[in-house]
Amino acid sequence: MDNFYAPGRNHLFVPGPVNIPEPVIRAMNRNNEDYRSPAVPAMTKTLLEDVKKIFKTTTGTPFLIPTTGTGAWESALTNTLSPGDRIVSFLIGQFSLLWIDQQKRLNFNVDVVESDWGQGANLDILASKLAADAAHTIKAICIVHNETATGVTNNLVKVRKLLDQYGHPALLLVDGVSSICALDFRMDEWGVDVALTGSQKALSLPTGMGIVCAGPKALEASKTAKSVRVFFDWNDYLKFYKLGTYWPYTPSIQLLYGLRAALDLVFEEGLENVIARHTRLGTATRLAVEAWGLKNCTQSEEWYSDTVTAVLVPPYIDSSEIVRRAWKRYNLSLGLGLNKVAGKVFRIGHLGNLNELQLLGCLAGVEMILKDVGYPIKLGSGVAAASAYLQNNIPLIPSRL
Amino acid sequence: MDNFYAPGRNHLFVPGPVNIPEPVIRAMNRNNEDYRSPAVPAMTKTLLEDVKKIFKTTTGTPFLIPTTGTGAWESALTNTLSPGDRIVSFLIGQFSLLWIDQQKRLNFNVDVVESDWGQGANLDILASKLAADAAHTIKAICIVHNETATGVTNNLVKVRKLLDQYGHPALLLVDGVSSICALDFRMDEWGVDVALTGSQKALSLPTGMGIVCAGPKALEASKTAKSVRVFFDWNDYLKFYKLGTYWPYTPSIQLLYGLRAALDLVFEEGLENVIARHTRLGTATRLAVEAWGLKNCTQSEEWYSDTVTAVLVPPYIDSSEIVRRAWKRYNLSLGLGLNKVAGKVFRIGHLGNLNELQLLGCLAGVEMILKDVGYPIKLGSGVAAASAYLQNNIPLIPSRL
Amino acid sequence: MDNFYAPGRNHLFVPGPVNIPEPVIRAMNRNNEDYRSPAVPAMTKTLLEDVKKIFKTTTGTPFLIPTTGTGAWESALTNTLSPGDRIVSFLIGQFSLLWIDQQKRLNFNVDVVESDWGQGANLDILASKLAADAAHTIKAICIVHNETATGVTNNLVKVRKLLDQYGHPALLLVDGVSSICALDFRMDEWGVDVALTGSQKALSLPTGMGIVCAGPKALEASKTAKSVRVFFDWNDYLKFYKLGTYWPYTPSIQLLYGLRAALDLVFEEGLENVIARHTRLGTATRLAVEAWGLKNCTQSEEWYSDTVTAVLVPPYIDSSEIVRRAWKRYNLSLGLGLNKVAGKVFRIGHLGNLNELQLLGCLAGVEMILKDVGYPIKLGSGVAAASAYLQNNIPLIPSRL
Amino acid sequence: MDNFYAPGRNHLFVPGPVNIPEPVIRAMNRNNEDYRSPAVPAMTKTLLEDVKKIFKTTTGTPFLIPTTGTGAWESALTNTLSPGDRIVSFLIGQFSLLWIDQQKRLNFNVDVVESDWGQGANLDILASKLAADAAHTIKAICIVHNETATGVTNNLVKVRKLLDQYGHPALLLVDGVSSICALDFRMDEWGVDVALTGSQKALSLPTGMGIVCAGPKALEASKTAKSVRVFFDWNDYLKFYKLGTYWPYTPSIQLLYGLRAALDLVFEEGLENVIARHTRLGTATRLAVEAWGLKNCTQSEEWYSDTVTAVLVPPYIDSSEIVRRAWKRYNLSLGLGLNKVAGKVFRIGHLGNLNELQLLGCLAGVEMILKDVGYPIKLGSGVAAASAYLQNNIPLIPSRL
Repeated sequence: MDNFYAPGRNHLFVPGPVNIPEPVIRAMNRNNEDYRSPAVPAMTKTLLEDVKKIFKTTTGTPFLIPTTGTGAWESALTNTLSPGDRIVSFLIGQFSLLWIDQQKRLNFNVDVVESDWGQGANLDILASKLAADAAHTIKAICIVHNETATGVTNNLVKVRKLLDQYGHPALLLVDGVSSICALDFRMDEWGVDVALTGSQKALSLPTGMGIVCAGPKALEASKTAKSVRVFFDWNDYLKFYKLGTYWPYTPSIQLLYGLRAALDLVFEEGLENVIARHTRLGTATRLAVEAWGLKNCTQSEEWYSDTVTAVLVPPYIDSSEIVRRAWKRYNLSLGLGLNKVAGKVFRIGHLGNLNELQLLGCLAGVEMILKDVGYPIKLGSGVAAASAYLQNNIPLIPSRL
Repeated sequence: MDNFYAPGRNHLFVPGPVNIPEPVIRAMNRNNEDYRSPAVPAMTKTLLEDVKKIFKTTTGTPFLIPTTGTGAWESALTNTLSPGDRIVSFLIGQFSLLWIDQQKRLNFNVDVVESDWGQGANLDILASKLAADAAHTIKAICIVHNETATGVTNNLVKVRKLLDQYGHPALLLVDGVSSICALDFRMDEWGVDVALTGSQKALSLPTGMGIVCAGPKALEASKTAKSVRVFFDWNDYLKFYKLGTYWPYTPSIQLLYGLRAALDLVFEEGLENVIARHTRLGTATRLAVEAWGLKNCTQSEEWYSDTVTAVLVPPYIDSSEIVRRAWKRYNLSLGLGLNKVAGKVFRIGHLGNLNELQLLGCLAGVEMILKDVGYPIKLGSGVAAASAYLQNNIPLIPSRL
Repeated sequence: MDNFYAPGRNHLFVPGPVNIPEPVIRAMNRNNEDYRSPAVPAMTKTLLEDVKKIFKTTTGTPFLIPTTGTGAWESALTNTLSPGDRIVSFLIGQFSLLWIDQQKRLNFNVDVVESDWGQGANLDILASKLAADAAHTIKAICIVHNETATGVTNNLVKVRKLLDQYGHPALLLVDGVSSICALDFRMDEWGVDVALTGSQKALSLPTGMGIVCAGPKALEASKTAKSVRVFFDWNDYLKFYKLGTYWPYTPSIQLLYGLRAALDLVFEEGLENVIARHTRLGTATRLAVEAWGLKNCTQSEEWYSDTVTAVLVPPYIDSSEIVRRAWKRYNLSLGLGLNKVAGKVFRIGHLGNLNELQLLGCLAGVEMILKDVGYPIKLGSGVAAASAYLQNNIPLIPSRL
Repeated sequence: MDNFYAPGRNHLFVPGPVNIPEPVIRAMNRNNEDYRSPAVPAMTKTLLEDVKKIFKTTTGTPFLIPTTGTGAWESALTNTLSPGDRIVSFLIGQFSLLWIDQQKRLNFNVDVVESDWGQGANLDILASKLAADAAHTIKAICIVHNETATGVTNNLVKVRKLLDQYGHPALLLVDGVSSICALDFRMDEWGVDVALTGSQKALSLPTGMGIVCAGPKALEASKTAKSVRVFFDWNDYLKFYKLGTYWPYTPSIQLLYGLRAALDLVFEEGLENVIARHTRLGTATRLAVEAWGLKNCTQSEEWYSDTVTAVLVPPYIDSSEIVRRAWKRYNLSLGLGLNKVAGKVFRIGHLGNLNELQLLGCLAGVEMILKDVGYPIKLGSGVAAASAYLQNNIPLIPSRL
């Protein structure tokens, strides 16, 4: 069944799905169970409590939906908005583009605020739109915290400040797919009304669970939102939450146990340490890129992403060839450039349950591939730059002191 | 993490999620992979071809959606129908009720044809509706092949004959959640336009994949259907099918490998042998129920289900107590009575990767529980009746001849 | 790789290797580790402490040897005895016979005390040998606690009493392969000098770990024992125990984690409850055999085994055909009759991580097979007899109260 | 149970136990089975045939013994030799030392030929011993193909030539624990009489299977060898080989399926490609060591090992601190210096199912550790040297062309 077998580990550096740690693989290695027995609700109750911690919310209500990030988007939108509602949405890369496409197809009235791919959300335009909207026709601001296609992290604090500055009541809906549980994210403090992620990203699980967290204002909005929804309807969940059985339809038993194990690992490491580790991995990657003489797709330091780095290649190189070669020769999985940046960037995902030596193996591989495709690289240069930083910054492993 | 530990195997006899065979658990015991590498499309291609065999279709187009049966329902409806469309739907138990609830909330105009819980779909009323609908205002017939709440299997051949008899062009949408890959189901021969199932039922996988198969008429309908949909939109899949990359969003790598293994097991056993095995298990269960002096919730033999048996208990017994006791004393998971039949029936699921001795262990357990709750049962009587039949009918295991 | 595939679970009722519980399979589902890191010694230390509890010893020293029961035997003998030493050994079935064969090949001088297969050790002869041995030429008594081939449990209390009565210093070496962690066994209280078991028996692990526990007198004897040994030499272990690194050669990382999980399950259930469960399963099996009108190979109640039942078949039936048929038609694995009782008995192993409904499924299967081979059985009779007892005696599952 | 948890993969670079590939972990993720059913002998038969291929023998007889390398040694010696037999054995490091210790304790008369640790076997002395032994008092030459403690590969071709040159009939017993299935090894061509390895080395399985292969001359010798043996007696195996049941005692079902999967992977990659991959990994490692300005413990190129590199550290550094630090800070497992070279070398194991990027990650880690402990290393230098070689020599992955 492994028709593409290669010796040794696959080096998985796409920005999702990411590497699953062994304890999580183990936890999921199990038969099905009756989800109506007392065991599954008891576990679900603790999961719902604990998952709030990775959103940094105490007031939010989480939903663990058997779906993907795309479904989680749909859940966020249809539960809080009505057809025709005006929303402001930022187009800065392929994933924000796809979300906007969904927003339009769900019949919202979308003000698309576009930036160059490689830049963050244009908050000046947001400011002017908010300023001009004394009538509060804007019902929601939709923003991707971390654009996975370009490695751009938006500044949510600024978005919140603008909303507050203009006293604007628009909901703040945040795609945290490639940020939550890896980047600093604070749902309550930043006044995020809906935040969402997917199991296969920083939580390092298989795909299949869309995790959506709704703040009180969003829950209130869901009572009057007129978008048609059934599968994604929060209300069906809330009904079963009240009953204490929790599930309007069958959950994946394996993903529940997997989430339990994944959260346990996060808490054992400490969420702040997890975030610091991502900062280290992101920084090291950027130092390598710089040492190689290549440019980061992200155009300014303020937007640097600690979960994914999109690397621009010179015009005479097709970045897809780099990705193909990585897989065909080095058993290394890199991210393709998508849409506008297809052929122009390749992406290194450095999120999830990952450590520094794994990253350095990847960077060493990228160096060889760059040489393969004719880029005049000095082998070892990126690894050297990354190592110099890491050797100064890696902490001792607490459990092994 | 197993807070409800009990020695030995859990005897899982709810009608889903069902027991996962070891080869499938093994196949899923793996790290994530880049779904954009050549490996995943190559596997997906064969899965899409092979999954058609369990629907018995050559003309259908399958969709492997990261969702549950509820999502598969929504996919079937929203891709083929427009708000306000008139549909005929049969209410014969909890799952048909939930589907009808979804149909209404999706703004279809539903003619609900209700039967006593325990009876099959009232096809006389269907006949009269079709007869009266010369204008073809009925756009779809929605029917659950096997109502999991009552153990009732509807006769789809008759439904097709009625449609043909009246030359009626309504789409035939079939919930095959607890039938496909266990009961005789023939999508092409019976002119089913959309059929669907869930991974955690007869395919014996974890929950998380809704499998929807659309016939040519349904695909044609999807081009004009005006129901709002994004996550569930077949068109997004078809676009990626054409590109040969297959996935509009991230699939579960584990479920893909699991499906591969599950299909391999079905084909190794032979689909007809799988169906025959379910007939044996269903028959044996019914013989045991009869021997116990209890009644089947299913009111007539024509509707007997070979995947689930709902057993009526005497009025002085609360069937929920039977289910609770099964779990608390015997590590046996039985199905609760739902809604109208809550407290009145308990359910034995006998579908999926299951054999006769597993079932006999369950039946022996049920006998002890019945005694526990005060029913005057003769211990061994059901097992004896079931064994007498099975001993005459179990074939030798082909691989072990 | 599964060339003998059959649907559903394999019903594993050989008296070892036995069913591995899911939590143990999960715990073993892992990569290798450096056994010289601090992690493995730390785990080993707790394992050595905890494993003593299942031997009921505080004074014994356990060795977790990468070998089978046969190797554990060799370890017990060669570490305590010298070539030419006189030992008394009881031949009551195939496994005691094999141990005696080993004793002879290791050049001990063996007084074989033979009984009919189906009887326990002849302790009258032991008494007379001890009485006649004022010179203490007998260096050891070797006895199988539970003879797996015939389902005979010897009375170790009586053996100890005889030794005490005659003030005889012979070592007491006990094969507890199919008893320890399932039957009542008390190393310290009964003055057992060496006791041993194998991982694949009541501990419900894979094969591969021979667990030998040496009391103080045995350890003392090992200092002067002249049998040649290297791999099995306790002294090599003791050297590394002192160093705190524990392993003279590479252990199986997976079995260590597996043992950890297996012990955790035993302690969670409670060792006394584990033993009581085996009593229930053994009693239920014997009641079924009686109801079938068949005889137990064990000739007297005093020797009944709660871990394995050898069932005598009428002369016109070949018991091997029962075992073959079980596997070929019912996916049931029963134990063959071995050596003297080949063709005459089949064996039902009821040890390890097993519950009552699993056993009842097995018994129902045996009934059908008996009918298959022409025995005039009343189907359901054994299950009825077993159930009647079990329904009165199964406790509620403590974690589910 | 993971008390020493650290995020990301453990980088396992001890020279055994080595990384287990995912397909092998999957294959072993299973319940026990009756080893007396037809399934296990059928699988064993193919395993015995296929395992000969990795020894490159058609005339040898393999034994899959539930033991470790130490047990495999004992099996090789006790089956072919009698107490008092004169043997020549080469002491070149810790593992040859341990084998010699075993040889002495088994009462053979051992001519120990010692070399400096870091040198290969002194074949000049062998030559003179053979020359002087016209009476053929030397019964066996015992040699470690690859000394794991120092990274020294002996030249077996030369040993065979000497034996042939002197027409000496001594048996040639080879410890191939860290060579077979990784280095070029040719049992038949080189006239090796007994060769052995352990499952946890190049085969990349868990510990627990000692694989011993006996040539015709060795089998003949076993008929008269007087060393006492039972557990390790080949004759017990041969008896069951003839019966077609194969096992004198219970094998590990999981290791059998694991071996099946491991061999399948070797054959899929191609044994020659496996060996070439080890040459690449060994060469790359040595180039890195050279670039770091450190010395290889192996004193001459002729003995370089492609499975393990022992790196000498400057006198002011304690190599144990390097190993400790690797584990405590980088989740990297390196091999300690043992015995004479304790504190002086650390070891990088580069054998088994491993690829180039994994090794480069390890090398990058070693660089940082060297800096940690005060060695004046230029970060990236070793990775650069290794990469320069690898980038020229890594082939495309055949399955992905």
